[in-house]
Amino acid sequence: MKQFLDLEDIPDVQKLIEEAISLKKDPFEYEHLGKHKTIGMLFFNSSLRTRLSTQKAAQNLGMKTIVMNINSEGWALEFEDGSIMNTNTAEHIKEAAAVVSQFVDIIAVRAFPGLTDKEKDGQEQILKSFRKYASVPVVNMESATAHPLQALTDAITITEFQQKKRPKVVLSWAPHPKALPHAVPNSFTKMMQLIDVDFVITHPKGYELDPKITKESKIEYDQEEALKDADFVYSKNWSSYKNYGKVENTDPNWMMTLEKLGEARFMHCLPVRRNVVVADKVLDSEQSIVIQQANNRTSAAQVVLKRILENN
Amino acid sequence: MKQFLDLEDIPDVQKLIEEAISLKKDPFEYEHLGKHKTIGMLFFNSSLRTRLSTQKAAQNLGMKTIVMNINSEGWALEFEDGSIMNTNTAEHIKEAAAVVSQFVDIIAVRAFPGLTDKEKDGQEQILKSFRKYASVPVVNMESATAHPLQALTDAITITEFQQKKRPKVVLSWAPHPKALPHAVPNSFTKMMQLIDVDFVITHPKGYELDPKITKESKIEYDQEEALKDADFVYSKNWSSYKNYGKVENTDPNWMMTLEKLGEARFMHCLPVRRNVVVADKVLDSEQSIVIQQANNRTSAAQVVLKRILENN
Amino acid sequence: MKQFLDLEDIPDVQKLIEEAISLKKDPFEYEHLGKHKTIGMLFFNSSLRTRLSTQKAAQNLGMKTIVMNINSEGWALEFEDGSIMNTNTAEHIKEAAAVVSQFVDIIAVRAFPGLTDKEKDGQEQILKSFRKYASVPVVNMESATAHPLQALTDAITITEFQQKKRPKVVLSWAPHPKALPHAVPNSFTKMMQLIDVDFVITHPKGYELDPKITKESKIEYDQEEALKDADFVYSKNWSSYKNYGKVENTDPNWMMTLEKLGEARFMHCLPVRRNVVVADKVLDSEQSIVIQQANNRTSAAQVVLKRILENN
Repeated sequence: MKQFLDLEDIPDVQKLIEEAISLKKDPFEYEHLGKHKTIGMLFFNSSLRTRLSTQKAAQNLGMKTIVMNINSEGWALEFEDGSIMNTNTAEHIKEAAAVVSQFVDIIAVRAFPGLTDKEKDGQEQILKSFRKYASVPVVNMESATAHPLQALTDAITITEFQQKKRPKVVLSWAPHPKALPHAVPNSFTKMMQLIDVDFVITHPKGYELDPKITKESKIEYDQEEALKDADFVYSKNWSSYKNYGKVENTDPNWMMTLEKLGEARFMHCLPVRRNVVVADKVLDSEQSIVIQQANNRTSAAQVVLKRILENN
Repeated sequence: MKQFLDLEDIPDVQKLIEEAISLKKDPFEYEHLGKHKTIGMLFFNSSLRTRLSTQKAAQNLGMKTIVMNINSEGWALEFEDGSIMNTNTAEHIKEAAAVVSQFVDIIAVRAFPGLTDKEKDGQEQILKSFRKYASVPVVNMESATAHPLQALTDAITITEFQQKKRPKVVLSWAPHPKALPHAVPNSFTKMMQLIDVDFVITHPKGYELDPKITKESKIEYDQEEALKDADFVYSKNWSSYKNYGKVENTDPNWMMTLEKLGEARFMHCLPVRRNVVVADKVLDSEQSIVIQQANNRTSAAQVVLKRILENN
Repeated sequence: MKQFLDLEDIPDVQKLIEEAISLKKDPFEYEHLGKHKTIGMLFFNSSLRTRLSTQKAAQNLGMKTIVMNINSEGWALEFEDGSIMNTNTAEHIKEAAAVVSQFVDIIAVRAFPGLTDKEKDGQEQILKSFRKYASVPVVNMESATAHPLQALTDAITITEFQQKKRPKVVLSWAPHPKALPHAVPNSFTKMMQLIDVDFVITHPKGYELDPKITKESKIEYDQEEALKDADFVYSKNWSSYKNYGKVENTDPNWMMTLEKLGEARFMHCLPVRRNVVVADKVLDSEQSIVIQQANNRTSAAQVVLKRILENN
């Protein structure tokens, strides 16, 4: 791979999933690949799993890691072409991306959406600017509209836990007090379209994701109907896409419970708000695989970095 | 050792002190122990010595280090069982500790007390939650009520500098403009009860530490009397324990001076407020061993991490 | 070298420049030098290039890196001798520098000026206090009045790109909305006095730099006249030195344009405000060498750290 901006950058999803799983046997097998290589991890937003798992993955591959919180440690970046920079921004992404490319071998970026301007968020200005002006491969650690490392993690996890050839996977919207991005449900939906599963999305009316993402994926507004015979249930909140970035519904009936879950495995990208998105009893049950899922963040990051280092 | 939450986790204090001192001869002798191992250092509060010395200690042992400021870089953590997380906290410690355990081999945590609720601080909720939900060893880098790495450092320093078999050690309260935690005096007192010293605590009336900590240790309210023939004087401020977290006394007569110090060595955990806690003349004299004491922070951290890596 | 506080610490500028350039052929050739050595990088201010390039340089030399944001992660430091520390500062530089020296082998410091008190900034209190109280070599990552790593970078870049024996180099003041320090123009001027170039400074009247810095260097108030036949043009804003720290002029006619640049190469230390300091057309042209210049930050830092590690 030459970059990892989104799932389209994966040439062979099924093979990549298998390779990620096989890396777990000996995480240090490819430690030679990263000798004298450095990853620069640039954060515009908070991170726990992504921050730690990507560092761990890079270190497993023998890479050095440099982590930077752009907003608090660096300079406010400008992304608009042709702007007269006489106000708040101190450095243009053209220089920043080109310069950082000379100090590191891979640039990883996390930059959330503003959730106020649908069109602007959809343009993925920060991620795409890094790609455009960086001279080294760029990895998406969650952007305005996509979180492909999480989606790869999710596919690895489903592959490890599935007990039938074509499991039923349900993405079930959940309530949340704050407006959350669409990156995780977007990338999860795209990934489910790429692997062999029976995929259903359920959410309140009005909470439809971008139709360019959901495409032909089944949407079932009746949560109970959607969850029937599910093998994996992925709970996740997102804010309205139509009424962009708004919290229109906080109906606690959409919270996931053991009763609703049935025999399914429970998944979530974390962090998760207990007893809002999902009941304690689910998370504390054997059916929850959120911890194993989070563990696969390392495997996903490691297989992506490995492929980039190998340039294949 | 399987963890280092408090001094009770040390099976053999005297042997550990000697081992720490012997590590100084060749700090890299055990570099093989940490190969492919990572320590995750999680900070809820400021740190200079602990941050740097623990990184240095881990690197001496060949470990990789991942450092994270939880509040500014991660998610606000929830510690209450059963809470409905619909306000400020975004992730429960149950998930956070379990997840981080999968990315690192040892978790080290620094979390100060709020100093407003004695009972809550005494429960050591943050440290104990990490211990409860982490699947890897947890190291205390200063918690609400204990700073055992500092106390081990202090014992190493006294052992190195003592000139008689049973030196007299005085913990002498000092004034300070802000309310400070009890972690350092608590752990120092407990350590002095474990090694062969003549130990006296002196402070204004009303500044008694938790009696479950001080136990049979001698308390002498007359500072001059307490300091008589001292070999080591450890100055330290703490806020009132009885009138919990309050600054009840700022009497500058409790500041340590050369006159009061006599022939004793001067110790402090640092950072120290000059000419408030202790006079310049003391810190700038040959009798002050605060710099050598701080240097032992590396030795203390290193011997603890070594024992945990060896699991003995 | 025993330290790198300013350009005076370089015993042999020309040789150091050549050595820096030769390091590029195999950046890892001296990886053995830094084995078991650690650099502690202490930031009082924002940084992108310095932060990343110094880490990269240290890692190229096999060193471990520990990075710390003093203000947000550590304790507020006191720099005044004899002060009674009963207000905001929690730790004196005497202790901080001495203690940090025990955990790392080289201390690198970045500390900008306040730009309100000319005399105080001129005393370089933070940098000089570290030098005074540290027991290991100190490296200046930009101080109140000097940025010698940048100046060394600039000399390396001019050496690489010069096409005649004695090129004409122009330091051309540029407008900027905020009051900026004098560190970069100061150190650039001093460096140009040390290498074989025809050096001219141009700026509006009243923007004279410290005459103890500019010495005999030519000052030409007519920008057009100054730029005539230039081989290298270095644009840079600085606030008034006479009317200390004030923005007295924001005349956009001082912005660098392609027309003004003529056949010269364009240089800037970055970050740079586009279309305020310099026009897009300059930065986006082949004549701009700011990215190559920034790349030399690694070479400059690496040759300095190498010399310090070699102690020669």
